[in-house]
Amino acid sequence: MREQMVSMVKQAQDEICNAIASIDDSDYREDEWTREGGGGGRSRVFSSGSVFEKAGVNVSEVYGVLSEETAVRMGGGIGPDGNLEFFATGISLVLHPKNPMAPSVHSNYRYFERGEGENGDIWWFGGGADLTPSYLFEEDVIHFHTAYKKICDRHTVADYGRFKNWCDEYFYNSHRKEGRGVGGIFFDDLREGGKDDCFAFVEDCASGFLESYIPILDRRKDMPFDQAQEVWQRIRRGRYVEFNLIHDRGTKFGLRTDGRVESILMSLPLEARWEYCHQVTEGSDEARMVAVLREPRDWI
Amino acid sequence: MREQMVSMVKQAQDEICNAIASIDDSDYREDEWTREGGGGGRSRVFSSGSVFEKAGVNVSEVYGVLSEETAVRMGGGIGPDGNLEFFATGISLVLHPKNPMAPSVHSNYRYFERGEGENGDIWWFGGGADLTPSYLFEEDVIHFHTAYKKICDRHTVADYGRFKNWCDEYFYNSHRKEGRGVGGIFFDDLREGGKDDCFAFVEDCASGFLESYIPILDRRKDMPFDQAQEVWQRIRRGRYVEFNLIHDRGTKFGLRTDGRVESILMSLPLEARWEYCHQVTEGSDEARMVAVLREPRDWI
Repeated sequence: MREQMVSMVKQAQDEICNAIASIDDSDYREDEWTREGGGGGRSRVFSSGSVFEKAGVNVSEVYGVLSEETAVRMGGGIGPDGNLEFFATGISLVLHPKNPMAPSVHSNYRYFERGEGENGDIWWFGGGADLTPSYLFEEDVIHFHTAYKKICDRHTVADYGRFKNWCDEYFYNSHRKEGRGVGGIFFDDLREGGKDDCFAFVEDCASGFLESYIPILDRRKDMPFDQAQEVWQRIRRGRYVEFNLIHDRGTKFGLRTDGRVESILMSLPLEARWEYCHQVTEGSDEARMVAVLREPRDWI
Repeated sequence: MREQMVSMVKQAQDEICNAIASIDDSDYREDEWTREGGGGGRSRVFSSGSVFEKAGVNVSEVYGVLSEETAVRMGGGIGPDGNLEFFATGISLVLHPKNPMAPSVHSNYRYFERGEGENGDIWWFGGGADLTPSYLFEEDVIHFHTAYKKICDRHTVADYGRFKNWCDEYFYNSHRKEGRGVGGIFFDDLREGGKDDCFAFVEDCASGFLESYIPILDRRKDMPFDQAQEVWQRIRRGRYVEFNLIHDRGTKFGLRTDGRVESILMSLPLEARWEYCHQVTEGSDEARMVAVLREPRDWI
């Protein structure tokens, strides 16, 4: 399974980067990196194109020995035989378009093993995809959720309703009492059904990414916008930064296990803004956006 | 001591805000807020003037009952008699000038009590002041450190050398292996010498703030700068955001104890920027700045 997953995430990285390069009319910068404790990764970041202010697609394959503290925090505990070895591989992408009408998107699929990762030991899959608009276009949100519902419906190990709610709960800025975005799906500790079925689901999700997002981007990337809308986009990106640095478990895990800082923080937008006590105008497009972030809806 | 400290921080807030208003040719927005669990505060934020992009000065006086988790994290433990009551008051300020040649500055003084705060119970003072330039002007750093060394030297409870090192260690972006700024002083759990002497030191620090910073600001606020220097300033402000959201204990304590979000995050700059794998040019002013952040110097 280790090899199967590593090969899948690398292929997904190639496919997605080829698609971005063609839309963005630019090429990525690639960095291969190694992790001192074991393993490494391949980061690809676009930042000079016409459509994205920053778009990163990482794959990594890391292994080694967890600290007891990290092992306990991750929920697996120290393990029956005190074995703290781990293996993790995954793909993680964050795309921030320039146009404030086009939503940012994040997706991540990962496979984790503790010990030998076989019977009696621990393994799991996790991942998901979620959309973060600055302006609400309901048809976009419905398109995104429908794409992942269709994928979930093809796999007995998946449950769209449960994963949708999990996504709303996970990507939540509790200190702001609002969601980071309009959700999608999120799952973790996926094990039931066995490795092959879980892998088939995750593979289907990863290869469905472009279809879930590109039609939305195509509709929005050339829309007109004004300076005030750009300012609002940067304020929303401030909230994105808050979530990733205060709450996100992936970011914390990466920084704690001495991951490559630039690859971990590649998820941050190019520019973010914090205005003291910023308020949206009642009845405005900005207020409609915030209302949905405060009270997540069912989109299907 | 509760009343004495509350009165001191309010007076310092008035003095400092008057000085900012005159330099910035603007007025602050004031918000009085109350905390559900007990107490409240008064936030004053400048954001429309000619000198500062954002400058906030908060005072607060909060009390109530800590969760056991927070009590343990704070280091005081649950207390001999299981008493989880606390009282805290303080002043906290963060000034972010517009001109990239003018450094940001942060200062905070606080008094904390657990239980009744008398003999056998727990009380302490904490605080400090630190400078965060985007460009290094050695005379500014020396001026700032000298101001606080002079204050420390007047008080037997204070030790500039120890507090200077503590500041370098505290305001450290460990994930970047660089300091947030060029330091100043930082102290916590200050108790030895008794309440009156500790208070006298803290009061002296707070009333010395303007003299430590305004001469620096005066020298830098009207210097010429170009767009590339503004971009560098925003990149440095991204690191400021990283420190405050990932590492700062005050921010974490505030968010955990349901403090007022806008007052806590008032410390964030107006705009910040994250460029993937940004590198400074060898021999440049930016490289000189980073070298000092990587290896803190003695300034006196």
